[in-house]
Amino acid sequence: MSIVASLSPRAVSAPESGIVEIINHARGREGLIPLWAGEGDLPSPDFINRAATDALLAGETFYTWQRGIPELRQALSDYYARHFAVSLTAEHFYVTGSGMHAIMLAVQAITSPGDEMIYLSPTWPNIISAIDISGARSVGLPLDFIGGRWSLDLAKLEARITSKTKGLFINTPSNPTGWTATPDDLKNILALARKHGLWIVADEIYARYYYGGAARAPSFLDIMEEGDRIIFANSFSKNWSMTGWRVGWLVAPPEMGQVIENLVQYSNSGVAQFMQRGAVVALNEGDDFVQENIGRATKARDILCDALIATNRVETLKPEGALYAFMKVDGITDSRRAALDIVDKIGVALAPGSAFGEGGELFLRACFLRNSQQVSEAAGRLAEYIIRL
Amino acid sequence: MSIVASLSPRAVSAPESGIVEIINHARGREGLIPLWAGEGDLPSPDFINRAATDALLAGETFYTWQRGIPELRQALSDYYARHFAVSLTAEHFYVTGSGMHAIMLAVQAITSPGDEMIYLSPTWPNIISAIDISGARSVGLPLDFIGGRWSLDLAKLEARITSKTKGLFINTPSNPTGWTATPDDLKNILALARKHGLWIVADEIYARYYYGGAARAPSFLDIMEEGDRIIFANSFSKNWSMTGWRVGWLVAPPEMGQVIENLVQYSNSGVAQFMQRGAVVALNEGDDFVQENIGRATKARDILCDALIATNRVETLKPEGALYAFMKVDGITDSRRAALDIVDKIGVALAPGSAFGEGGELFLRACFLRNSQQVSEAAGRLAEYIIRL
Repeated sequence: MSIVASLSPRAVSAPESGIVEIINHARGREGLIPLWAGEGDLPSPDFINRAATDALLAGETFYTWQRGIPELRQALSDYYARHFAVSLTAEHFYVTGSGMHAIMLAVQAITSPGDEMIYLSPTWPNIISAIDISGARSVGLPLDFIGGRWSLDLAKLEARITSKTKGLFINTPSNPTGWTATPDDLKNILALARKHGLWIVADEIYARYYYGGAARAPSFLDIMEEGDRIIFANSFSKNWSMTGWRVGWLVAPPEMGQVIENLVQYSNSGVAQFMQRGAVVALNEGDDFVQENIGRATKARDILCDALIATNRVETLKPEGALYAFMKVDGITDSRRAALDIVDKIGVALAPGSAFGEGGELFLRACFLRNSQQVSEAAGRLAEYIIRL
Repeated sequence: MSIVASLSPRAVSAPESGIVEIINHARGREGLIPLWAGEGDLPSPDFINRAATDALLAGETFYTWQRGIPELRQALSDYYARHFAVSLTAEHFYVTGSGMHAIMLAVQAITSPGDEMIYLSPTWPNIISAIDISGARSVGLPLDFIGGRWSLDLAKLEARITSKTKGLFINTPSNPTGWTATPDDLKNILALARKHGLWIVADEIYARYYYGGAARAPSFLDIMEEGDRIIFANSFSKNWSMTGWRVGWLVAPPEMGQVIENLVQYSNSGVAQFMQRGAVVALNEGDDFVQENIGRATKARDILCDALIATNRVETLKPEGALYAFMKVDGITDSRRAALDIVDKIGVALAPGSAFGEGGELFLRACFLRNSQQVSEAAGRLAEYIIRL
């Protein structure tokens, strides 16, 4: 028996990320404009880096609190009071080793092998794999795509629920589609969860990147009540340009505290304290920086989407939230091949829709959290490529 | 139904670490000598910290290679050539977000829900929980404890193997017992694994802390052949005083590369690149520092163990490897209560043997990777406490 044949089927069947495949194909190419990953072009800001390096050089290199240092949990509490108008004590917050880690812990906390968890498709593929690797079964519900807009059909969602369903994974604003739940969507989903006794894992990582005329997207935090079973997974990556740090957090009922602490202990045993010092400063002193990032995204979204729409060969409208143009292009029928071709021909790196599950096969995803000049250049090259198809 | 009742049984049943319980009981007490955790008293050395802070301030804050940056994988390859006299290409190495994360990935890679994995007891409790949370079933085999020495009875190990057994988890030198597999032990275990088609997860984190008259403990690397199914989990924590960083690695067959990359992608999506820069320097320039740590441990082991043995009420002999005195004390029948009492009465923090599974209940664990003066003081207080029992 070969090495690979002797491994766990669930490990072997976890797919290679279709995004990483393109990254590995193109890494290091001269002049490439990388719109593939969910990552901006700014490094982490200096005031955040300094807080971390000061702590590291001061010797904060020992084991620390499994739930996160008290200062960071308090800073998260303050952040939610400022931006979500909710009063959640520090006991509701748990620091994790990335948003990905937060998602994995949330799934592990609520599901057992054999349970089902429903997600909305197309989706960030890591959500599907986190569910499957944990031993539960991922069940996708494709959103509807009509007239260039994505929407959720609640009856279809309810039809996916079985006696094995343990939870709903709701990512809003959505990566990659930009679909953003309306207040009514959220109310209906929560009512469904209550009726069927389901957990909701809410991934609202992109809540602040919202283009609907308010400071942030509608959130389950606006409507939930004491006792509702909702866990929020979040990350420092997008708001504070800290993708490379791998620090995230969970918002969860304090009754779950010991369970989450144990799952942290047995997965990575906590997050480096000197990194947490940077995260504290990001929250407490980073509002202006986040606002700058939001401004850049708003501007770049217009530049990229206007150019694509002007080709008359792209069906997708501007996204309501998140950081992606998820485009359906006339004449492209194999998004993986198209993504490789676009790298080779025009030096723009996109993520293939085939990486995002059912309903995404025909699309290409472009992350627009970059400077206007580079996005303009990419938009021009893409428009030309599309017109020539 | 309460929040906790609605969670996954496997998550709820993951026990609170019995070590963390004592830490939380005593954190912040004046004058406490903390011998509880597997952690030394030195902060990470400056030359390592500087490499990380330089990289962070230079903007290495973006997503990076899921398997680890090439420089770090090469540095690991060089390290193994120097200290283990093996020639393993960089393709054998995978960077993880702590030794704990390495263990979890190894377990996920080889087991499916329902599979069994055998470990040797007493053991670091996180090993048991990693197996159980992954969905597999942990099966303990207590080592024999005769005349103050731990040993492995191979026939008993073979008797634990069933048709569901997928692997053997072998931690040598062992935390907490100090048991260190002899070359014959290793040969016999490997023969057993080959005979039954089992994986070995080898946790040789303490290999360099060996007091048996050689530069390191015997290792599976000394006897394994191409095609043997062995994964090594390791960590920067103990050798380079980097416990708080949460960086570790796996050594595994290159055929597993894509599987491990995917498991990394879906658990924490990689390790911060600026931290990896520190790890590179630790390996390439840290041999003297590790030697200093080994020297301190060797000296402190003598001070602590000699004082304890001189009471004539401690059964345990000096450990052959690792960083712990695991002591069985006449008159102590409840190690958890004793650990709390010892914190309160003499300000020394130990880990209770009850935290380490079957066979450890009557013991107390003291980590001796500290300066001689503090270990002397702790040894004196402990000896006095023991004599008065």
